[in-house]
Amino acid sequence: MKVPIQDEWPEATSFCWGCGKNNSHGLQLKSYWEDEETVATFIPQEHHLAFPGILNGGIISTIIDCHGTGTANAAAKKMGRNDANSMYVTASLTVKFKKPTPLDKPVTLRAHVKEFDGDRITVTCTLYSGNTLCATGEVVTACVDPAVFIK
Amino acid sequence: MKVPIQDEWPEATSFCWGCGKNNSHGLQLKSYWEDEETVATFIPQEHHLAFPGILNGGIISTIIDCHGTGTANAAAKKMGRNDANSMYVTASLTVKFKKPTPLDKPVTLRAHVKEFDGDRITVTCTLYSGNTLCATGEVVTACVDPAVFIK
Repeated sequence: MKVPIQDEWPEATSFCWGCGKNNSHGLQLKSYWEDEETVATFIPQEHHLAFPGILNGGIISTIIDCHGTGTANAAAKKMGRNDANSMYVTASLTVKFKKPTPLDKPVTLRAHVKEFDGDRITVTCTLYSGNTLCATGEVVTACVDPAVFIK
Repeated sequence: MKVPIQDEWPEATSFCWGCGKNNSHGLQLKSYWEDEETVATFIPQEHHLAFPGILNGGIISTIIDCHGTGTANAAAKKMGRNDANSMYVTASLTVKFKKPTPLDKPVTLRAHVKEFDGDRITVTCTLYSGNTLCATGEVVTACVDPAVFIK
């Protein structure tokens, strides 16, 4: 059985509200490799709305951010570019909202690395509800020393 | 006593997970005019973390989005540019993360309208923890027919 990207992280980096397995109040997004891209499915909760029946843009931004940083860190690991002294965190996030996203259906995120550039990895992401492209995202991540973030 | 921008909206548009007064599970962000800019203070909950002690980027994106759309709609109202047949929703959101944001302190959002351009209003936003600029955001909103979103 495949292990989610986020579940391979050290315990101390597994409390993220968006994707940490140790955050019982969080969204617990799980991302998986599928060939050269990563995929995650997210089932919205009833209260994650923007308007009745429509998924909230902040929730969409959160799962794109988490799927993006998950992809960046997993890609760095694949390429031998990270170690105990480095991790990739979000430097900037851009989300474009194309269509209202239904609240009552799962959404599917697909992402891939667009660019490795020095200490930055840029990931692009799509969010579909069924066959409808509802949002796109770009997550620029920067390599940092984990000691700055994890005390 | 000042009324929050979001609390002046119709009941049907007050369920947003980020800022709706009718969403008991939501963040309930409240924005206020302060001269030509809008201000909101947000107190993170314990589980809103990225890493222990650090506020989550998805939560930051959510409150910037809600403060931005709140500002756009309130500015449109001030200028007589909206009515029952129009509202401004997010077309795109960009957030730049400058510094880790402490989880255990309130954050302050300040925003203003950068541009009115046809049916779009662009809002820029800063997020401070104390005197530290931790994030900036730009929210491009588009004027839509509420009937498309509210059934």
